[in-house]
Amino acid sequence: MSATATRLLDNYVAGAWTPAAASDALDVTNPATGEVLARVPLSGASDLDAAVRAARAALPVWRAVSVIERARRLFALREGLVARQEDLARCVTAEMGKTIGDARAEVGRMIEMVEAACAVPTTMQGRILEDVARNVDCETIRQPVGVCAAIVPFNFPAMVPFWFLPFAIGCGNTFILKPSEQVPLTQQIAFEVLDGLDLPAGVVNLVNGGREIVEGILDHPGIDAVSFVGSAPVAKIVYERAAQAGKRVQALGGAKNHIVVMPDAVIDKTVGGIVGSAFGAAGQRCMAGSVVVTVGEAHDRLMPALVQATEALAVGDGSDEATEVGPVVSCQARDRIAAWIDRGVADGATPVVDGRGVGGDGIHPEGAFVGPTILDDVLPGMDIAQEEVFGPVLVVVRAESLDEATAIVNASRFGNGTSIFTESGAAVRRFRHDVEAGMVGVNIGVAAPVAFFPFSGWKDSFLGDLHAHGGDAVEFFTRKKTVTSRWFSDGQGHGTYFVET
Amino acid sequence: MSATATRLLDNYVAGAWTPAAASDALDVTNPATGEVLARVPLSGASDLDAAVRAARAALPVWRAVSVIERARRLFALREGLVARQEDLARCVTAEMGKTIGDARAEVGRMIEMVEAACAVPTTMQGRILEDVARNVDCETIRQPVGVCAAIVPFNFPAMVPFWFLPFAIGCGNTFILKPSEQVPLTQQIAFEVLDGLDLPAGVVNLVNGGREIVEGILDHPGIDAVSFVGSAPVAKIVYERAAQAGKRVQALGGAKNHIVVMPDAVIDKTVGGIVGSAFGAAGQRCMAGSVVVTVGEAHDRLMPALVQATEALAVGDGSDEATEVGPVVSCQARDRIAAWIDRGVADGATPVVDGRGVGGDGIHPEGAFVGPTILDDVLPGMDIAQEEVFGPVLVVVRAESLDEATAIVNASRFGNGTSIFTESGAAVRRFRHDVEAGMVGVNIGVAAPVAFFPFSGWKDSFLGDLHAHGGDAVEFFTRKKTVTSRWFSDGQGHGTYFVET
Amino acid sequence: MSATATRLLDNYVAGAWTPAAASDALDVTNPATGEVLARVPLSGASDLDAAVRAARAALPVWRAVSVIERARRLFALREGLVARQEDLARCVTAEMGKTIGDARAEVGRMIEMVEAACAVPTTMQGRILEDVARNVDCETIRQPVGVCAAIVPFNFPAMVPFWFLPFAIGCGNTFILKPSEQVPLTQQIAFEVLDGLDLPAGVVNLVNGGREIVEGILDHPGIDAVSFVGSAPVAKIVYERAAQAGKRVQALGGAKNHIVVMPDAVIDKTVGGIVGSAFGAAGQRCMAGSVVVTVGEAHDRLMPALVQATEALAVGDGSDEATEVGPVVSCQARDRIAAWIDRGVADGATPVVDGRGVGGDGIHPEGAFVGPTILDDVLPGMDIAQEEVFGPVLVVVRAESLDEATAIVNASRFGNGTSIFTESGAAVRRFRHDVEAGMVGVNIGVAAPVAFFPFSGWKDSFLGDLHAHGGDAVEFFTRKKTVTSRWFSDGQGHGTYFVET
Amino acid sequence: MSATATRLLDNYVAGAWTPAAASDALDVTNPATGEVLARVPLSGASDLDAAVRAARAALPVWRAVSVIERARRLFALREGLVARQEDLARCVTAEMGKTIGDARAEVGRMIEMVEAACAVPTTMQGRILEDVARNVDCETIRQPVGVCAAIVPFNFPAMVPFWFLPFAIGCGNTFILKPSEQVPLTQQIAFEVLDGLDLPAGVVNLVNGGREIVEGILDHPGIDAVSFVGSAPVAKIVYERAAQAGKRVQALGGAKNHIVVMPDAVIDKTVGGIVGSAFGAAGQRCMAGSVVVTVGEAHDRLMPALVQATEALAVGDGSDEATEVGPVVSCQARDRIAAWIDRGVADGATPVVDGRGVGGDGIHPEGAFVGPTILDDVLPGMDIAQEEVFGPVLVVVRAESLDEATAIVNASRFGNGTSIFTESGAAVRRFRHDVEAGMVGVNIGVAAPVAFFPFSGWKDSFLGDLHAHGGDAVEFFTRKKTVTSRWFSDGQGHGTYFVET
Repeated sequence: MSATATRLLDNYVAGAWTPAAASDALDVTNPATGEVLARVPLSGASDLDAAVRAARAALPVWRAVSVIERARRLFALREGLVARQEDLARCVTAEMGKTIGDARAEVGRMIEMVEAACAVPTTMQGRILEDVARNVDCETIRQPVGVCAAIVPFNFPAMVPFWFLPFAIGCGNTFILKPSEQVPLTQQIAFEVLDGLDLPAGVVNLVNGGREIVEGILDHPGIDAVSFVGSAPVAKIVYERAAQAGKRVQALGGAKNHIVVMPDAVIDKTVGGIVGSAFGAAGQRCMAGSVVVTVGEAHDRLMPALVQATEALAVGDGSDEATEVGPVVSCQARDRIAAWIDRGVADGATPVVDGRGVGGDGIHPEGAFVGPTILDDVLPGMDIAQEEVFGPVLVVVRAESLDEATAIVNASRFGNGTSIFTESGAAVRRFRHDVEAGMVGVNIGVAAPVAFFPFSGWKDSFLGDLHAHGGDAVEFFTRKKTVTSRWFSDGQGHGTYFVET
Repeated sequence: MSATATRLLDNYVAGAWTPAAASDALDVTNPATGEVLARVPLSGASDLDAAVRAARAALPVWRAVSVIERARRLFALREGLVARQEDLARCVTAEMGKTIGDARAEVGRMIEMVEAACAVPTTMQGRILEDVARNVDCETIRQPVGVCAAIVPFNFPAMVPFWFLPFAIGCGNTFILKPSEQVPLTQQIAFEVLDGLDLPAGVVNLVNGGREIVEGILDHPGIDAVSFVGSAPVAKIVYERAAQAGKRVQALGGAKNHIVVMPDAVIDKTVGGIVGSAFGAAGQRCMAGSVVVTVGEAHDRLMPALVQATEALAVGDGSDEATEVGPVVSCQARDRIAAWIDRGVADGATPVVDGRGVGGDGIHPEGAFVGPTILDDVLPGMDIAQEEVFGPVLVVVRAESLDEATAIVNASRFGNGTSIFTESGAAVRRFRHDVEAGMVGVNIGVAAPVAFFPFSGWKDSFLGDLHAHGGDAVEFFTRKKTVTSRWFSDGQGHGTYFVET
Repeated sequence: MSATATRLLDNYVAGAWTPAAASDALDVTNPATGEVLARVPLSGASDLDAAVRAARAALPVWRAVSVIERARRLFALREGLVARQEDLARCVTAEMGKTIGDARAEVGRMIEMVEAACAVPTTMQGRILEDVARNVDCETIRQPVGVCAAIVPFNFPAMVPFWFLPFAIGCGNTFILKPSEQVPLTQQIAFEVLDGLDLPAGVVNLVNGGREIVEGILDHPGIDAVSFVGSAPVAKIVYERAAQAGKRVQALGGAKNHIVVMPDAVIDKTVGGIVGSAFGAAGQRCMAGSVVVTVGEAHDRLMPALVQATEALAVGDGSDEATEVGPVVSCQARDRIAAWIDRGVADGATPVVDGRGVGGDGIHPEGAFVGPTILDDVLPGMDIAQEEVFGPVLVVVRAESLDEATAIVNASRFGNGTSIFTESGAAVRRFRHDVEAGMVGVNIGVAAPVAFFPFSGWKDSFLGDLHAHGGDAVEFFTRKKTVTSRWFSDGQGHGTYFVET
Repeated sequence: MSATATRLLDNYVAGAWTPAAASDALDVTNPATGEVLARVPLSGASDLDAAVRAARAALPVWRAVSVIERARRLFALREGLVARQEDLARCVTAEMGKTIGDARAEVGRMIEMVEAACAVPTTMQGRILEDVARNVDCETIRQPVGVCAAIVPFNFPAMVPFWFLPFAIGCGNTFILKPSEQVPLTQQIAFEVLDGLDLPAGVVNLVNGGREIVEGILDHPGIDAVSFVGSAPVAKIVYERAAQAGKRVQALGGAKNHIVVMPDAVIDKTVGGIVGSAFGAAGQRCMAGSVVVTVGEAHDRLMPALVQATEALAVGDGSDEATEVGPVVSCQARDRIAAWIDRGVADGATPVVDGRGVGGDGIHPEGAFVGPTILDDVLPGMDIAQEEVFGPVLVVVRAESLDEATAIVNASRFGNGTSIFTESGAAVRRFRHDVEAGMVGVNIGVAAPVAFFPFSGWKDSFLGDLHAHGGDAVEFFTRKKTVTSRWFSDGQGHGTYFVET
């Protein structure tokens, strides 16, 4: 990690690293140690406005670059990120806390997004049909939307911004990124790579900051489209407020992801899938499994092995290669999560693994640690089974049949990801058909689709219609223009209406 | 037209014709004569709620019908509409005023929508890919969104509801239509056809009414998606308020459509295209050409022929086969339009054809008539050149080059349709590339795409991202579910994890 | 069935029913009774040439009809076929022998083909992309191939011709059909419907005949594309000879379809699936299951119920609603099939159900009957396990694992359809991934895809690259034309290169 | 160019550079100087068989690599080619003769092919649809075809092999390339890059040789698909013989490409387009314009400038940056071309620019030079207007209208590329609609589509149905497998058919 602790981060605006106008700044800390890594400015309206103006100015310039050439810049972006893969991963771990293994996987997925966006000369193709009426043709071409912005959360400092950035610019838009003020460092590296690509000034812009920038993005008339990833309440506000400003908007919100375990599940591998899903990134993934729903005898088969595996997890600084569970993002988060566990227990849950007050070797006293926690005997109606904790807390609920399990999943106001562990094709088909969630895993704990397929939830987990990445990205980042044409002259090279020179 | 003048219309809810609970009602009048054709109830919250409950109840029933069978109901719908084609057209003319020729064309386009929706077993297909990782597959399937509603305007009583209805139900959704209270009769016929299809009760519902039903649709938590077509200010409200309620929404608003005439345009045919665009349906089309932008010498070439053709138009009752321009929708509309002409003239425009106070044979004294009007010498900045009049009023603005003409088009806050008349391929390519509008006509006055391509504007003419009909309809009326799967057992028919019975 | 026994069938050429020039003719018989239903002419080169000339002459006329209007003719075709659905089914049974239930299902699928082809204004759309280089655009449009011909077999007199005809003409091609001389009557009805559609003369043509017409189609320079369905040896000849003539060609050949039964299969329903697959249409389907491969203990679980169900099948005249297995197509076929059973038994198979010499009530002495037959104890290498019998003969082979079963399937030179019966998702995924066949059924005995997906085998079951129906049909019946364009003038309406008039 | 003159080239088989078994070899010469650059072995059946065995063995290994990982190898391939871009271009010039500028452009297009193939995780996706019947789903997945081979011509030593190789391996096939024995050196470099990618041994193979290898590829039962680019007569043989062997085949043959010049064409730029098309690569491109068809007064406007520009072209060694026209590929080719010019003149053509006996500075006496030649006063029926010369010879034919010009184009037995130069949109639309050619240029001399769109001609210029690159490449290099599935058990986790362990 190249940042020095006291460095005040710059924005990247109009093709240059630029100090924010604002004087306020926040510390960026390593949650494993409390170390201050840098200071992030709380940019203000003038900073954002400069970025919007740069982005608007760049639009005609960038759009005039051919789509094949734009894709070539994405190929170069990919190469640049590959070259700095380990830097990026280490930075993710340092500022966000996840293990270096998780961070490397995240950076791998970040790069995969660029790979998917490289297909833009194929995916951006429109449709054309001759003779819709006699001598009349019709075609739909796709053109960029304009200036697009993304507001992203702390939990995937590398990947989530790249759900949007490469697709947006590949389609000919210009782009403004507001990273999470908790984890602004990783995108500094990404933008160093972008800075090396010789893009026209203003194509990509980075504005650090907090709520003022979020609101500015939603309201600024110079921004045409907004992509948001964050909590459900903020997603709701974003969706409404961007709509109020007449913008195109997609808002990915929170989740409470259920993992249904059928009695025939292959237990050892199911345990691996659950543990990775529930405790990877310390449970701070919008795709983290947070509720296990056991069907029938699955409960008795699953729980001993699950508890044992959870207890064996090594908690510590994510930069240690041996660590399996790192800290949560901040001490406030730690305390919030611990309070949630308290509340679950108070409501009747049994803490079969309790991560409160985790300590010991490898646990820095200033670190924001919560150990992996499993609460059994949870009833579907308890708050701990309904609300998003966003920490390494897994609750276990029982059902008697797949239909009952599905009903439990579908009763949630969220519908992001869900998984089923079974070898039964019939159970999978029924679950796939009936479950109300945008992403479904079959024997996979974290059912985040690869970059070539759309990512998004349903219900309160998502507001909008077009999902992130996959084919939806090109839909979101382009406007359709449908042309209907005919000609009056006969084009023979002579006669009344032909050219006379 | 089979309706008797004093008939109070029913709603269609849960598979049956149902009286509205409300006692208030409005007259439905023939704008050509002032005759009261029927009375339309102002349904209330309980009427809408009954429809929503019926639609929700029908969802699992209808979704269980195979997609091929659902398409077959659309084939039957088409046949039913074809059988009543002339009834529908006559009803459109009676309640809305447009000429019977325009009405027949509208009903033809209405049926074309059903034809496009019949492709749903093809267009609803999702994507699947094997081995995205070793032994891991990924697939995106498309499932219905839920209960969908459409709020539609007066100007296309037959067609606009069918931009949505056949696609929505073809995708497995259930549907609620709120027709315009000014023209509720045509959809009574459409729903008679639908009633004959043996759909499960609640799949399609018709709720007559006014603002209370509009607001109810936007707010009701039982409605998942809203399609709106109407004026720009209401579209803005719809977009914001549906977003506030967390719904999927597409809102098609108003327009100010420019027709660019290049100096090489084929004048006689260009005149035909302009006249049809500006005065067809008495200018009450969201795709009506309302501003001609002449480039260079095009003005002198065009105007005499244009004025002559406009003056020759036969104004009268649309049900008379000889009529070329019918009444506007109501006397209020007539007065509003006349006031706009006054204002244009006051601002400096020259009324080269003046339709105020049109009279004579065939003009019923109670009819809502405004004659075709052309205002020349209009400057781009005048209100009459910027605001939507929604009547048979065409303004003429001059430009010196295509770039200047395009700049005039792009300065509008609207971006619905626009046309260019020229034989120059270079001019067309440049215009197509640069103009900011969702629909472009080349030598075509009304560039409304056929049903198989998406329909929508840009900027203030449209809020949302997915357009009406074409491929976008299936996108809007389905939710994507992405499934990632693998299996742990080896499936050989023996061994630990295989079935033992 | 309206045909009188002595009627000599006409061809349909250039929009009119036309006698064949040839004097030779064959009897068309009802295989259940030996009754002569009609006589089919053996048309000659001049008949075919007339059809080709008519089809070529119709090409520009038909192509000038808009694609939406062409689709409307398909809508009308569908309505016409629906109106004569029962006539068509009865005719299929009369001339081909299959049960009336099977015949109705076939006609249903025939109509489904037309439904799929009705989507042609959507499916025929090409691709367009702006700015592949600066100011250079690229587009691929799809245009008809020209005159297309199909040569079809006896086993689906209604459906197989419609794998091609509606897609071909929907795409703007003209078409020549050579039906099987054994079952020419059903297409007489289909062409009566086509005759009522007011298509331009020559768009569809029907030429009855035998080998001379087949060879003529392959060689005639006026035919651009050939679709063939029949036996593997003829498919091979067709593929080679059409290629020699430079034509586009797809040749669907024979099959030996394996049904893999896993130990966990749901036996009662599996038996139903197998019986329907093996004995429906008296085994004369290219998708008929003809080899059961039992895995492990599946053999013992399956066989008693399978034998019992097979023995209970009612054999008789297909026109009797109670009949479950009708005759085979001819007495020659019956004798060939019986000889195959003899050979299987001679090679060591055990005839656990023996249909040779079937008799009794409902079995007409002149009828071409073979009863359902099951040969157990068959080894994979026996001829009866490798060669296509095309009759109601099912052989049973044993395997110890899914991999062994798959290897048995893959060792066949054919690769048309195959099915697996199991509830294991893992087994299905592995089978789907590894099996070498173009069509796979999961718990489905006849895995013929619906019209909206492509139909075809692999290996010796298919020669070519584009399959029948589904998206492939439009690929096969269109030629791609890729246009790359730019303009030199600036299109501003003045200047050197603009129009001066 | 790194090859030493006497180097005997190796094949690349099973992941290693391998000497051919054969002792025969041919000289590879620099056509600008006659210098021997290397010797190419005439491999025999055993060499090919080794490659086929390696390719078959690699199939399961390579297919087991995930599609995303396969794409990553293509990303690496792109980087490797970019790194050796100049080496490749210099090698092309050295062995084939085209100017270094043309060679660089060719290598650029070669790399673009890899870029297009990188989209394979998107483009290889199949289709899936739930509930085609109640509880029955259908899906089409795409799997590799098997071992694919390409036989390629001398004129694009770098690019044409890459129309196939990256798409084939991206789809999971293994591949055998037979380069032209006249220009085998460039692919030695390409395979050095491929060798560095750590592909499984046998995924890509290079077999040098002549007719014996061509025939071996057509006949070898271990090869599943053949792509051919070459002359029309050989394409015909390839198509027939590969079909005879039951293979999937696409055969791109010769051309006679017409350039239609309308009277309104922008002359200076049209001249540039024609000169580049007719004389670039010394006319040895299948997309080279070889017939100009002037419409009306276009002839008088065009010819003086065209002659002047042609006469000004610098002929010489392509490795000299100032050279505009290099040698043809060999002295035999030179003599054949000169004989064609003689014949044209004998038939009545007027040689307005005569390239026979070109000499002077920069013309090596051993070089295979023909200067740019224009024959005016050519009639459409002359052999010189009908047959492919494949050299820098342009003939000029006159027409009176676009329809007459189009008829001249369509009378050719070829239908590869054609261009029109005009500013008239009407002329372009009519030409695009009516002309019988697979590739059309509008104001572009060489209308070769970019890699993201399909490349191919019609009529004798192409045999098969699926074109090269673009979306067609994935169609050609995959087999479709359609799966129809249902489940019998209810999957609830208990009951008769659920798993008991």
